Amino acid sequence: MHKTKVAIVGLGTVGAGVAKILLDHGDRTARNAGTTLWLEKAVVRDLSRARDCELPDGVLTDDLSEVTGDPEIKVVAQLIGGIEPARTIMLQLLESGKDIVTANKALIAEHGAELFARARELGRSIAFDAAVAGGIPIITNLSQCLTANQVSSLSGILNGTSNFIASAMEEQEASYKWAVKEAQRLGYAEADPTMDVDGTDAAQKLAILAHIAFGIKIDWKKIPREGIDKLLPVDIRFAKELGYRIKLLASAQLSDDGLELHVSPSLIRAGEPLAEVRGPFNAINVEGDQVGPLFYYGQGAGQKPTASAVVADMIDMAVGRTALTFRTLKLFTENHSDVQMCSPDKIRGRHYFRFSVEDRPGVLAEIARALGEEGISIASVIQHEPENFDGDTKSYTPLVIMTHTATQGQAARALEVISKMPTVKPGARKMLVQD
Amino acid sequence: MHKTKVAIVGLGTVGAGVAKILLDHGDRTARNAGTTLWLEKAVVRDLSRARDCELPDGVLTDDLSEVTGDPEIKVVAQLIGGIEPARTIMLQLLESGKDIVTANKALIAEHGAELFARARELGRSIAFDAAVAGGIPIITNLSQCLTANQVSSLSGILNGTSNFIASAMEEQEASYKWAVKEAQRLGYAEADPTMDVDGTDAAQKLAILAHIAFGIKIDWKKIPREGIDKLLPVDIRFAKELGYRIKLLASAQLSDDGLELHVSPSLIRAGEPLAEVRGPFNAINVEGDQVGPLFYYGQGAGQKPTASAVVADMIDMAVGRTALTFRTLKLFTENHSDVQMCSPDKIRGRHYFRFSVEDRPGVLAEIARALGEEGISIASVIQHEPENFDGDTKSYTPLVIMTHTATQGQAARALEVISKMPTVKPGARKMLVQD
Ligand SMILES: NC(=O)c1ccc[n+]([C@@H]2O[C@H](COP(=O)([O-])OP(=O)(O)OC[C@H]3O[C@@H](n4cnc5c(N)ncnc54)[C@H](OP(=O)(O)O)[C@@H]3O)[C@@H](O)[C@H]2O)c1
Ligand SMILES: NC(=O)c1ccc[n+]([C@@H]2O[C@H](COP(=O)([O-])OP(=O)(O)OC[C@H]3O[C@@H](n4cnc5c(N)ncnc54)[C@H](OP(=O)(O)O)[C@@H]3O)[C@@H](O)[C@H]2O)c1
Repeated sequence: MHKTKVAIVGLGTVGAGVAKILLDHGDRTARNAGTTLWLEKAVVRDLSRARDCELPDGVLTDDLSEVTGDPEIKVVAQLIGGIEPARTIMLQLLESGKDIVTANKALIAEHGAELFARARELGRSIAFDAAVAGGIPIITNLSQCLTANQVSSLSGILNGTSNFIASAMEEQEASYKWAVKEAQRLGYAEADPTMDVDGTDAAQKLAILAHIAFGIKIDWKKIPREGIDKLLPVDIRFAKELGYRIKLLASAQLSDDGLELHVSPSLIRAGEPLAEVRGPFNAINVEGDQVGPLFYYGQGAGQKPTASAVVADMIDMAVGRTALTFRTLKLFTENHSDVQMCSPDKIRGRHYFRFSVEDRPGVLAEIARALGEEGISIASVIQHEPENFDGDTKSYTPLVIMTHTATQGQAARALEVISKMPTVKPGARKMLVQD
Repeated sequence: MHKTKVAIVGLGTVGAGVAKILLDHGDRTARNAGTTLWLEKAVVRDLSRARDCELPDGVLTDDLSEVTGDPEIKVVAQLIGGIEPARTIMLQLLESGKDIVTANKALIAEHGAELFARARELGRSIAFDAAVAGGIPIITNLSQCLTANQVSSLSGILNGTSNFIASAMEEQEASYKWAVKEAQRLGYAEADPTMDVDGTDAAQKLAILAHIAFGIKIDWKKIPREGIDKLLPVDIRFAKELGYRIKLLASAQLSDDGLELHVSPSLIRAGEPLAEVRGPFNAINVEGDQVGPLFYYGQGAGQKPTASAVVADMIDMAVGRTALTFRTLKLFTENHSDVQMCSPDKIRGRHYFRFSVEDRPGVLAEIARALGEEGISIASVIQHEPENFDGDTKSYTPLVIMTHTATQGQAARALEVISKMPTVKPGARKMLVQD
């Protein structure tokens, strides 16, 4: 059987998973690529560290030039996280003639334009299906399977850590803090989970998907984002009472005002497929004008699912498909469409408001008036007996209002007015409702 | 912009949908294929029939040689249903140098080996993602995105007509007959729905998917199949009481005895994604050793979803990906694995039995003994007050038994013994339970 030499740079969680597939299942790459993907080198920083895979003698090295200097190595899985030295190493690999597979969404979201342009100049390709939604092959599905469609909306649960935490808070009726610890204990959250829980990771992934699905080039930092790090059990409880679950949703919807993009904790009706995604799983809803609704569900991270996507990309490269796709789609180089990002203020949806109000007459009327003045109409209200849900000594009544459709701008302005009312306690909360 | 001439043969539901995308959305094919797919000819049988699309002058013809004789036409969407003349036309198109996209699962399931072999000899390709699950791109996902995996199981709802009927029976508590009429009225079932409701269509699709996922060449006729055409409301009701829904499931599972294949009405626990698939939708669960569980959901038929898949395949051809995949995978030509089909008798699972028994002491004990003699142990029993659920005048008691895991052979033998008991009425029912 013909063989194609490949290398891995960065032998952490994902890298070791890729090495294990290449070493233990050469029959699969041979059958599906028509050539055995032969692991020639695995580059690490620290040779003395224990690795989660057994490598044949001579494969492990801390010298990148053993890869860049070997013209027989055609395909490299670049699996170092973060921006530097990952970016510089990507460029070195491209210059030395390698096609590159990566799982590094931060790098693609931040430097996709530069890296893809350089790859194109050099006649090389970059594949990155593992960078978004781990084992769910959403990049290939969007860029190859749904090409007859105008996608009108795409929304998903793209960060498994956040989803695990939100699910745990709901199922165990637990605090955010407890759920983070639990996620760390079970290996679903890093020691420092900031980028996951504050929405950064989901926004980077959304920027990548929106580029492919809508042809729009966007800086992920411009996507309005809110994480689950300020989620309170009280909101999860009220959402449940209303028949919803709260998920960290990454959403892109075409509207008359452009592409509505946001990452935010959102209420999704229980029973809807996205609402039922629990634990570390990811899921994505895509709506196309031809195909209608499509729903994908699977593991968004973890060694094996991510390695599954990386190796599929390596096989695509060996077969030659990636080079054709890369050349044709011109991703990250051109805007394929005139679609503009909708101003965050203009994003439309129903809203959930939760206030803590003093328990005396007239307060609801006052709040309703403030909403009305912004043109927001109320769909439903829950007001229970006073309770003391956040450890405050004074007794407040939680008041929950679900509105009909309004813009984020209207909702934000109403919230500002209401928050200043003396009868309303600080810490009011507003979330989008996904219907 | 460069253009690639294409043709459609067979301008029915799907063909007209393909024509509309090509004619109305040339920007999409241009962007995603790097060349405009230019509809040069559309071949029909009867020129006088009204068509569900408007064609430019000179495109419509009833003369296939206008396609076979034009060397500039590279890609043809062959969208005639059934075996002949579709098979002969496919061969003529291949001989004249065309790459072919088709949605015809019957033809692929029946003559895939012949057609693919001929295409390979002639250096041509065939693509068929529309042939299974309509808008869900399951063929591309299996043959390209999941190539790093050993798939261990694949099960799905692959026939939208059956699913519509089963859903309607459940939701409306209606008879099979009523639900079929309703499906016909709404356009979800043909005037003669036999191939859909008796499991033929699902078995043909399962044979295609199993070939790609497990590398096994199987005659679809050898797959044990049962349709929904004998489904009774009483079973749907009992399933519901037990917390299950009944779906026509097409299933392929690797076991120690080989590949367990079957198409049959099966009990799926309510809340499981597959159980919640309603109306004409399709859905597929795939389990891979790397990726873990993946779930796909979308429209399995209809003009637009199917055309979405056909046009994506045409774009793949124009880009050049199909030729590479076709050459590498050698589908329908070679067995890629030593996997054998498991003898139907050996398929393992939990079983649902429903008997109508005479309402007198000792009957349950007798039945339990017969099951025990086959080594089948009982998980749960429902026995209600006598009722008259199928119009019989004599009053019988329905008795439902859910078993622990046993083989189909054991279950069939026990059923035979029990059915002969004088206290048991003919028409007992047995179904697999999918846990
Ligand atoms: N883990 C997942 O589930 C997952 C899922 C999807 C995407 N991703 C992405 O995949 C990438 C890798 O993630 P991971 O979880 O595998 O990270 P990880 O476990 O932290 O591994 C990163 C590896 O990169 C190596 N490295 C760092 N700098 C290097 C250098 N200069 N030269 C050579 N090697 C260097 C490290 O080597 P040492 O071991 O010697 O320090 C380490 O082995 C990240 O971009 C991540 O966002 C991960
Ligand atoms: N409909 C769906 O939702 C769907 C979904 C998935 C797959 N499929 C598959 O797609 C294929 C087409 O389905 P369909 O629903 O589009 O069928 P359809 O509406 O019955 O259309 C079939 C077309 O083939 C034409 N035809 C028959 N013999 C011909 C011949 N000798 N020369 C030229 N044209 C000929 C017919 O022409 P006339 O109109 O002149 O009679 C008709 O327009 C079938 O294999 C089906 O299984 C359909």
